[in-house]
Amino acid sequence: MPDVIPADSVGIVTPQIAQFETPLALSCGQVLSSYQLTYETYGTLNEQASNAILICHALSGDHHAAGYHAMSDTKPGWWDSAIGPGKAIDTNRFFVISLNNLGGCCGSTGPTSINPETGQRWEANFPIVTVEDWVESQARLADLLGIQTFAAIVGGSLGGMQALEWSIRFPDRLKNAIIVASAPKLSTQNIAFNEVARQSIRRDPDFFDGNYLNHDSVPTNGLGLARMLGHITYLSDDAMGAKFGRQMRHDSYQYNYGIEFEVESYLRYQGEAFTKRFDANTYMLMTKALDYFDPAAQADGDLAAVLSKAKCEFLLVSFTTDWRFAPERSEEIVNALIKAGKPVSYAKIEAEEGHDAFLFPIPRYMTLLQTFLNRVANRLTTEAN
Amino acid sequence: MPDVIPADSVGIVTPQIAQFETPLALSCGQVLSSYQLTYETYGTLNEQASNAILICHALSGDHHAAGYHAMSDTKPGWWDSAIGPGKAIDTNRFFVISLNNLGGCCGSTGPTSINPETGQRWEANFPIVTVEDWVESQARLADLLGIQTFAAIVGGSLGGMQALEWSIRFPDRLKNAIIVASAPKLSTQNIAFNEVARQSIRRDPDFFDGNYLNHDSVPTNGLGLARMLGHITYLSDDAMGAKFGRQMRHDSYQYNYGIEFEVESYLRYQGEAFTKRFDANTYMLMTKALDYFDPAAQADGDLAAVLSKAKCEFLLVSFTTDWRFAPERSEEIVNALIKAGKPVSYAKIEAEEGHDAFLFPIPRYMTLLQTFLNRVANRLTTEAN
Repeated sequence: MPDVIPADSVGIVTPQIAQFETPLALSCGQVLSSYQLTYETYGTLNEQASNAILICHALSGDHHAAGYHAMSDTKPGWWDSAIGPGKAIDTNRFFVISLNNLGGCCGSTGPTSINPETGQRWEANFPIVTVEDWVESQARLADLLGIQTFAAIVGGSLGGMQALEWSIRFPDRLKNAIIVASAPKLSTQNIAFNEVARQSIRRDPDFFDGNYLNHDSVPTNGLGLARMLGHITYLSDDAMGAKFGRQMRHDSYQYNYGIEFEVESYLRYQGEAFTKRFDANTYMLMTKALDYFDPAAQADGDLAAVLSKAKCEFLLVSFTTDWRFAPERSEEIVNALIKAGKPVSYAKIEAEEGHDAFLFPIPRYMTLLQTFLNRVANRLTTEAN
Repeated sequence: MPDVIPADSVGIVTPQIAQFETPLALSCGQVLSSYQLTYETYGTLNEQASNAILICHALSGDHHAAGYHAMSDTKPGWWDSAIGPGKAIDTNRFFVISLNNLGGCCGSTGPTSINPETGQRWEANFPIVTVEDWVESQARLADLLGIQTFAAIVGGSLGGMQALEWSIRFPDRLKNAIIVASAPKLSTQNIAFNEVARQSIRRDPDFFDGNYLNHDSVPTNGLGLARMLGHITYLSDDAMGAKFGRQMRHDSYQYNYGIEFEVESYLRYQGEAFTKRFDANTYMLMTKALDYFDPAAQADGDLAAVLSKAKCEFLLVSFTTDWRFAPERSEEIVNALIKAGKPVSYAKIEAEEGHDAFLFPIPRYMTLLQTFLNRVANRLTTEAN
């Protein structure tokens, strides 16, 4: 916990809830008659409502991107290193909005919420939501907050897919899209890893076909396994090697199935910790949203044709050791944007952290974001004068 | 099933059983008072007993490497593409031995065998065995068959570790070691994947702490998951992409947890098929043998120092798209051999199949093996004359 709130922190923040009563038609064909989105904001919206930045979260993220909820918090929001006064996403200049996506388990309507039509938790009956659905719901949140056009929409990984979808679906509602460690669609291997994660959860007898809470149960074994697997794929081979190598728990091999290598202990801990903060149905929904995303499909795989609708500027960022969303995947987007004649900047950042790098305050990466966004902020000032 | 046995097949083969009554002291400290090894042989041992080749199997392999057990077999042994008359491992010239390792589930003593001291199946009480233990037991099999020195010992992946261990432990008992798609020790990431596989099995309630057969149970969910995960890591991202891409089961998304993408169906099938032929305790043992192997540890990590004992020639082979045992891992062995002043040939083969490439009859790879082994056979002839 912080003894004193650091000067470059957004400080103590309070999540807010937006209630929507206009039905939302989802990609899957179902309609959500009402729903709520939980969000946080940092910084101040200017008079022209032109300085808003939307942060889109990844698989296991939430609305709490920066600052602290209380002085007793052991750590700040998940992207605190990038968001704050004077930081890369500078809250002295921008009004930053971060929400928990629909289907989430951190305050927005999702599987753990009560279905108003039944009075029971949604659980397995919560409809599958897509990146497109999220972008629609985010646009409604923007309407509610009086934001017609975002200065920028920013996201890493699955969050980057949302930023990309915004540029296609609402080309007039964003000036810049910052897409980090992402891809225009999952590779077969990505889908395969997601399927193993889902099967891990579904095969846990405590899953009860997704209706575990109604059985006073939680599929901790399966969700923990899914997280262990995910964790391996978020880190680079080198980063795991540097962190743990073949460090042993004991002086010599024990020749049993207890902990022999520290990396085993680490993975088990990560898996278990995750089950205490995350909902298994939400995890499954998020993996499906990843699988389904493929905007080029609407133009027979021609991503450039789809992106021809975009009107914003783009910044793409990838990381050298990211093998879950490798630089080549970002470059597919870059190349499609070039083909479509769109303004795009791209940086491949040297980083050891693998896919997780997008969450780390790597100096070159932070400088890149800051420089790009400073230019965005300067233009806003010029336009206002 | 073959209508006619192909001319380059070893034909119908019958597994043999060798019974050992001399106690075997294992790395873990336990002693196996007696045990049996199931093996097959192809070709004919020459008068000098100098033309024997030992095949060491990988994680899920067995003794049935070539030929057919019956005309009704749907497919031949697991390395039939490489072993046979006129093939890379030419049974016209060599006497080839392939065994099921100790701890296996295909005929050699392992967790599914009866423990003579209890009259019950070993199950979870079967001791953990190591690569070193296997090499010891293989040397005893060689003794039994009257083979003092192997012309070559060949293995891929975990099998390559056995060939490497032979060169260190019994330097006078092999003339050549062929080590394919292997590593001098597992990386942290490899250990991590193994740990997730083991946890998948252990967390299955049908596992009963490893004593499932005594409970008339089989942990099919967990073992299937472990295999699904393993399968992803044996294939390259590109190979999976080329094979399945984003091919869908239906014309449009179904938005449920059934099969959406063909790769999901493939993985589930692979997982399920594996549970019908393989034992979960054996799978766990094999992953532990992989984790523990680290011959350089006896010389503070100096692999060259350990390999200075070796007297054989080495052929190392890696495959470009193998990310589970990447070319760099083979090159660690190559570099250590060069440092130790040992004769070593090395080829990195262009292949799309990832780690699985070592099982495929890739022409350049087969030619390489054949050329190397022809030279070995020619030398035998020269020596005999």
